[in-house]
Amino acid sequence: MAKEISKAVIQRLPRYYRYLGEMMSEGVERVSSQEFSERMNVTASQIRQDLNQFGGFGQQGYGYNVKKLYDEIALILGLDSRHSMIIIGAGNLGQALANYTNFERRGFEIKAMFDKNEELHHQKVRGIEILPMEELESFVRANQIEIAALTLPKAGADAIAGKLVSYGIRGIWNFAHTDLDLAAGVVVENVHLSESLMQLSYRMKNELD
Amino acid sequence: MAKEISKAVIQRLPRYYRYLGEMMSEGVERVSSQEFSERMNVTASQIRQDLNQFGGFGQQGYGYNVKKLYDEIALILGLDSRHSMIIIGAGNLGQALANYTNFERRGFEIKAMFDKNEELHHQKVRGIEILPMEELESFVRANQIEIAALTLPKAGADAIAGKLVSYGIRGIWNFAHTDLDLAAGVVVENVHLSESLMQLSYRMKNELD
Repeated sequence: MAKEISKAVIQRLPRYYRYLGEMMSEGVERVSSQEFSERMNVTASQIRQDLNQFGGFGQQGYGYNVKKLYDEIALILGLDSRHSMIIIGAGNLGQALANYTNFERRGFEIKAMFDKNEELHHQKVRGIEILPMEELESFVRANQIEIAALTLPKAGADAIAGKLVSYGIRGIWNFAHTDLDLAAGVVVENVHLSESLMQLSYRMKNELD
Repeated sequence: MAKEISKAVIQRLPRYYRYLGEMMSEGVERVSSQEFSERMNVTASQIRQDLNQFGGFGQQGYGYNVKKLYDEIALILGLDSRHSMIIIGAGNLGQALANYTNFERRGFEIKAMFDKNEELHHQKVRGIEILPMEELESFVRANQIEIAALTLPKAGADAIAGKLVSYGIRGIWNFAHTDLDLAAGVVVENVHLSESLMQLSYRMKNELD
């Protein structure tokens, strides 16, 4: 079923998921598309259209069941299963990721960090140990790690990514300022911070008088 | 002219810009859409279509002048002028941003960081001083700061953002896990890391066998 959902909707699903989670923590059990629309600042018809793509739990005169919709979106996004993750690069950005408890609540468990800097070895960030690069292969294989976050400089990123794939990693969350050149069978999701800042700059130039 | 360019193209421009910058540093003076396409792993016709939207410097049998195209994209993205920026929240993520020299090379100058944690006050990260929140207003006004990066927890983000706008900030680069509710006249660009990780999870579930 999930395969039929359009890419644009998929990109909006995490935001729906976040708002539904907030409603649940406020004790809201159901929400009309109108109320939902006011919270999220999108049109009610966009919400109906988006959510209809995967079965539409909205009912005339009732609205959406918050918990059911939340669970359904979790299923579509693959958040129903746990994912084991490591972080390569234990600098500020790597440590910032290690400190986010949000990821764990979504099912992403950070099992270790790796860095070539000896001074960092065996230090812990929120209980997550920083290990030497020499232990990367055995650790990934022994712990069936699925996802690696790359928070290291561009220069080393391609070589490391290639190795990770050969060790069995299936998803790379890439913060290095480069596009990785990898074989099929692995998914790369990029977070290119400079590019986001350029979008901000463009919009300031064009949207503000 | 910039106003006519489609949003999808604008989102791709920073990536073109990055590749053109790499070519310049390799000494490449011109590039055919075919070569460009191989480097960037998109079709040559997409490149021609995209770049034609703002005048198209490509010439039959010559290709694109790398430097000219690079400068033109910089102009469109607003990178031709300097932007003064501050970071609110001097935790790991804020410090990671302060450590990126890339932003400066694109014209974004980080003038100070702010944090309520007294232990951090007057420490420096790559020469950038961490100041108390009490100095925020006077600093923003005195230094004509245009952009604020918010790397602080969700709870305080909305209140700070509202104040920043009243002090004259025109662009907010928001890393807090919430959508800011702000009046018109300010641009917000969000980096929601959890949402990016959920996209990765979705794609692993759906794109891999």
